[in-house]
Amino acid sequence: MARFGILTSGGDCPGLNAVIRGTVLQGTGVYDHEYVGFRDGFRGLVYGDAMDLDRSVVRGISQQGGTILGTSRFGPYVEPDGGAAAMRASLERLGVDGVIAIGGDGTMAAANRLLGDGIPVVGVPKTIDNDLEATDYTFGFNTAVEIATEAVDRLRTTGNSHKRCMVLEVMGRHAGWIAMYAGVAAGAHAILIPEQPESLDQICEWVTSVRDRGRSPMVVVAEGFRFPDMDQAHSHKGMDGFNRPRLGGIAELLAPLIEEHTGIETRATVLGHIQRGGVPSAWDRVLGTRFGQAVSDLVADRDWGQMVALRGTDIVRVPFSAAVGNTKTVPLEYYRGSRAIFG
Amino acid sequence: MARFGILTSGGDCPGLNAVIRGTVLQGTGVYDHEYVGFRDGFRGLVYGDAMDLDRSVVRGISQQGGTILGTSRFGPYVEPDGGAAAMRASLERLGVDGVIAIGGDGTMAAANRLLGDGIPVVGVPKTIDNDLEATDYTFGFNTAVEIATEAVDRLRTTGNSHKRCMVLEVMGRHAGWIAMYAGVAAGAHAILIPEQPESLDQICEWVTSVRDRGRSPMVVVAEGFRFPDMDQAHSHKGMDGFNRPRLGGIAELLAPLIEEHTGIETRATVLGHIQRGGVPSAWDRVLGTRFGQAVSDLVADRDWGQMVALRGTDIVRVPFSAAVGNTKTVPLEYYRGSRAIFG
Amino acid sequence: MARFGILTSGGDCPGLNAVIRGTVLQGTGVYDHEYVGFRDGFRGLVYGDAMDLDRSVVRGISQQGGTILGTSRFGPYVEPDGGAAAMRASLERLGVDGVIAIGGDGTMAAANRLLGDGIPVVGVPKTIDNDLEATDYTFGFNTAVEIATEAVDRLRTTGNSHKRCMVLEVMGRHAGWIAMYAGVAAGAHAILIPEQPESLDQICEWVTSVRDRGRSPMVVVAEGFRFPDMDQAHSHKGMDGFNRPRLGGIAELLAPLIEEHTGIETRATVLGHIQRGGVPSAWDRVLGTRFGQAVSDLVADRDWGQMVALRGTDIVRVPFSAAVGNTKTVPLEYYRGSRAIFG
Amino acid sequence: MARFGILTSGGDCPGLNAVIRGTVLQGTGVYDHEYVGFRDGFRGLVYGDAMDLDRSVVRGISQQGGTILGTSRFGPYVEPDGGAAAMRASLERLGVDGVIAIGGDGTMAAANRLLGDGIPVVGVPKTIDNDLEATDYTFGFNTAVEIATEAVDRLRTTGNSHKRCMVLEVMGRHAGWIAMYAGVAAGAHAILIPEQPESLDQICEWVTSVRDRGRSPMVVVAEGFRFPDMDQAHSHKGMDGFNRPRLGGIAELLAPLIEEHTGIETRATVLGHIQRGGVPSAWDRVLGTRFGQAVSDLVADRDWGQMVALRGTDIVRVPFSAAVGNTKTVPLEYYRGSRAIFG
Repeated sequence: MARFGILTSGGDCPGLNAVIRGTVLQGTGVYDHEYVGFRDGFRGLVYGDAMDLDRSVVRGISQQGGTILGTSRFGPYVEPDGGAAAMRASLERLGVDGVIAIGGDGTMAAANRLLGDGIPVVGVPKTIDNDLEATDYTFGFNTAVEIATEAVDRLRTTGNSHKRCMVLEVMGRHAGWIAMYAGVAAGAHAILIPEQPESLDQICEWVTSVRDRGRSPMVVVAEGFRFPDMDQAHSHKGMDGFNRPRLGGIAELLAPLIEEHTGIETRATVLGHIQRGGVPSAWDRVLGTRFGQAVSDLVADRDWGQMVALRGTDIVRVPFSAAVGNTKTVPLEYYRGSRAIFG
Repeated sequence: MARFGILTSGGDCPGLNAVIRGTVLQGTGVYDHEYVGFRDGFRGLVYGDAMDLDRSVVRGISQQGGTILGTSRFGPYVEPDGGAAAMRASLERLGVDGVIAIGGDGTMAAANRLLGDGIPVVGVPKTIDNDLEATDYTFGFNTAVEIATEAVDRLRTTGNSHKRCMVLEVMGRHAGWIAMYAGVAAGAHAILIPEQPESLDQICEWVTSVRDRGRSPMVVVAEGFRFPDMDQAHSHKGMDGFNRPRLGGIAELLAPLIEEHTGIETRATVLGHIQRGGVPSAWDRVLGTRFGQAVSDLVADRDWGQMVALRGTDIVRVPFSAAVGNTKTVPLEYYRGSRAIFG
Repeated sequence: MARFGILTSGGDCPGLNAVIRGTVLQGTGVYDHEYVGFRDGFRGLVYGDAMDLDRSVVRGISQQGGTILGTSRFGPYVEPDGGAAAMRASLERLGVDGVIAIGGDGTMAAANRLLGDGIPVVGVPKTIDNDLEATDYTFGFNTAVEIATEAVDRLRTTGNSHKRCMVLEVMGRHAGWIAMYAGVAAGAHAILIPEQPESLDQICEWVTSVRDRGRSPMVVVAEGFRFPDMDQAHSHKGMDGFNRPRLGGIAELLAPLIEEHTGIETRATVLGHIQRGGVPSAWDRVLGTRFGQAVSDLVADRDWGQMVALRGTDIVRVPFSAAVGNTKTVPLEYYRGSRAIFG
Repeated sequence: MARFGILTSGGDCPGLNAVIRGTVLQGTGVYDHEYVGFRDGFRGLVYGDAMDLDRSVVRGISQQGGTILGTSRFGPYVEPDGGAAAMRASLERLGVDGVIAIGGDGTMAAANRLLGDGIPVVGVPKTIDNDLEATDYTFGFNTAVEIATEAVDRLRTTGNSHKRCMVLEVMGRHAGWIAMYAGVAAGAHAILIPEQPESLDQICEWVTSVRDRGRSPMVVVAEGFRFPDMDQAHSHKGMDGFNRPRLGGIAELLAPLIEEHTGIETRATVLGHIQRGGVPSAWDRVLGTRFGQAVSDLVADRDWGQMVALRGTDIVRVPFSAAVGNTKTVPLEYYRGSRAIFG
């Protein structure tokens, strides 16, 4: 009987537990697999710290946020005790025949190195930013967008009542998908993403033109957005004449600048960790479950070095090589197209 | 300057207003179009009952459920005053150069007939059941699934506390997509869909086996599900010995039968209209907006006889002929595959 | 060291787990009590079926709907194995010094009889209908009202789009509090409650006048509402000429009658069990926690025969005698006052 | 026919529109009043900037966050154009017989001064912090607590997955009611409120003891909380050796200090404006509606100088003198009592 180990690595994401549940239920039900879960990402694999995952453990968990296995940013080749030998020893000791690594770009890169070192491994993509080229969508993104959209809906009423400009910062370090989706869904007046710098003047012009139409400007900004004159603007903020490292997020930097340049009272909100925790949306639970079922098929086939992915409505397999290092950013034409509807 | 008319036809659906808003904002902003909205579906087109749709009218409406245009099941060739001549006269009188019909299979069939009668028309697919072959997803479906999933989550706690079997009926006349997605997301123990009849004995066996594992059975059933011995079972329910037309939904029929055959106290809930109203999910607002933007491109191109559709992450065009009459049902392998995870 | 047993009896209610948690955390933390939980209401007390409730068992449960103890409608003096002797024997065997009974009017009546039979018992009021005179509010009611209100918000958009009259049935067998609160919160056009019969003619007049003002009528009806000509109206519905017992709820009876008498297309939705399950509102969790903390004080004081209750912002104690049999109905002046705002 | 003017002053609050709607519907329906709304608080009263409020304007608005009248912090006796003479002139010009001022402590103090200057005025209390002695609850507070509680529920799953301490900052400048309610509802491990300073050592001891029990510490802190060594701790944070004004909220100050002192990775989230905007809870809509209805009775009675308030389940009248300057803080025994359940 085959026995596989699952680990979740990197930041937590709504839908992780659905993947774990889908894998175990399908793997034990269809293939007679056994499963263990490594605790806290690659740390559990390196130290052989694992828990049994039978059907009773995973029942009812897809509604829960986070991951029942725990997660960490432990680098299996970076940490002193890491390395292929340590991981191989853990697998042997636990009688585990292959590893299912659920994680983002960094995790897939590490998994690829494991594969090169002869460790049987497959992958499940996980990025709340939805910025992986190899898959149409990743789980967690949908929940984050719903939460961010509700936040915009809420902020808008305060903005309207006080005639203020409201700035909401959402996640998105290298790709602005959450900002794009939430901004379009909630009818923001400006969406600022890492892919496309915009000058402070341009932003203020948008804000002013919204106000001039009698409305209260709503700006959604991804955490990774940068504007050309940002460092100068920032040091300009120092009241004691010293340059210093920026505190707070981009929204907290932008809001006072917008207020200063436009004369419109402006308030910043940083959504932060609220976006990634809590009950996953149904969509993310379904996607996570399908990924989990498909990855149990992968290990049943011993199709090592593959990652599951969504293409249209199908779950497909893509090799690690195609998955690693390909960031899916918001296409400029989509970004520009969305400007047409900034009503 | 070109001028187009929009109509929404058939049952309302979360996301309709996002389509209308996306069309008008993109069409007026990018192409200098003008738009009117026909009231109450084809009725407004036949009688020339229309409202101006400028940018101010559509601002902020994507958060609203329903359709600001009103809708109806008025058949443009069926109703006495209908017919191509009446519609052509309306278009001429209102100075409208083409029609954007937002609706389901029946609406697209009617639109196809309009096209044959020389009326310039394009389409936007709308079915809350997600059962249109030509598009990966339709808007509204996502909202319905989220609402249905939350309902299952809620019912489960009552089921567990009382050790009852809970039966939830969701929408899905010819295709069981809502039941499949909500059932998988919420971890139902049985999902019953129109595509696949199951015998009452089979259902009761599933229910009993869940109870025997110490859990409270949760059944999600699509309104269109039928079981082989259903008519007999039903007439058997009559207390006065008379056969009569079934009242209530399939859940209200199933629940007492399950209770009778298994001895497990069973309760039915029919979700009904709650699934289709109210604030649309962010996903449906984004999809609706993208459909709307794309259909304004369609009419700008005078690409009559085409319908917008989602393929993967792209919005594409498909001819009416490919869209009409192709119901997308749940594939049997997907249905059976999901049984593996009925934990 | 004192040891007490908790039981939850009757229909489940959001907030039950908060009561259990509040009792155990306060009782163990402040008074060094021990607690057990009787399974499935009085059944567990009669048969001595109990689980240990230490701090680790109750942590994190206040977010969960239902009751971790299970519940039932088992009558401790009605069921064959019941009676004071059986319960006394259970308490002795388990070393339990007193009983905390969480339940509604029937449970408090039973508790009062236990008290008369010399069994030390205190009470926590529980009725989702909020119809207990002795307390300003009961937990669970707030969650039910929030869910019902969201349902009205959703139905309204469908009603407006289709120009239909929508009828929503909510809980409330003897008192219409849920209907009143949800109807007022969501701006219903008619609220029908058990306390005040209204004729079908009156209802139809209200519905028609709303339509005549260009709006789509929204009716919220409590399950216990009755109208004078109801039985006749109902038998009138039989298509085969036979009178028969009514199937379905009051909404399903009213909707076709309204449609028939007004000519306005009318749809019924029965909210049912969705109102009582799932994640409790913060308000209900706080009230449940405070009740739980206060009842641990009660047993610490051996103040048997008392029930905790909310008065203003204070938690007070009331004797069983004052609590039993006093249904708190909606005052007629409040009902009539609310008609002023049926916009 | 009598004619009254309504204004909303200070920060926006979920339920304001329900008050406006309740006032107008009851006042026009029962008493034949006319109503106008002053725009942007006292600014509208000083400048005579008002809109007619007939029944059609207020229909359906109770679901909307914010205030349809706009609001501001304009001080009627502070701003250059202000003063009793200006307001009296506005009232005369608009034919308004009395003012309904909806606002917080500062608004009631201003209203009291208006009264002294012979301007007929009544009040409706509004504070999202719930810190007004004269009323059991204010509208908006309930919505804020529900949003804050959901945020804690979400953050907890991330905390557990990463074994982090999560710190959530909620509103509450002078009173910690939102922190208390959300913290109790969601089972926080520490609740920090303005009423009760706690030392950094004490906080870190709580956090460490939670971690030692194998759990992830959850801290809810009100924005107004201060700890004894705070200024020192803060200046200690400066990396360049300069003291400077604190940026960001208390959570952003606490989180790195907790991390530094306990060695537990700690993250801060500031909920901010999200708490006060958006769809009001049903409870707040009902309370707002009842306040609105009651204040229309107040002006019908010409009972100037009174404010409506909630006592138990009743709406009562209290004189301005009793309402002004009496902050309702969290009683220390309630704060300490809640520590018993910090599981």
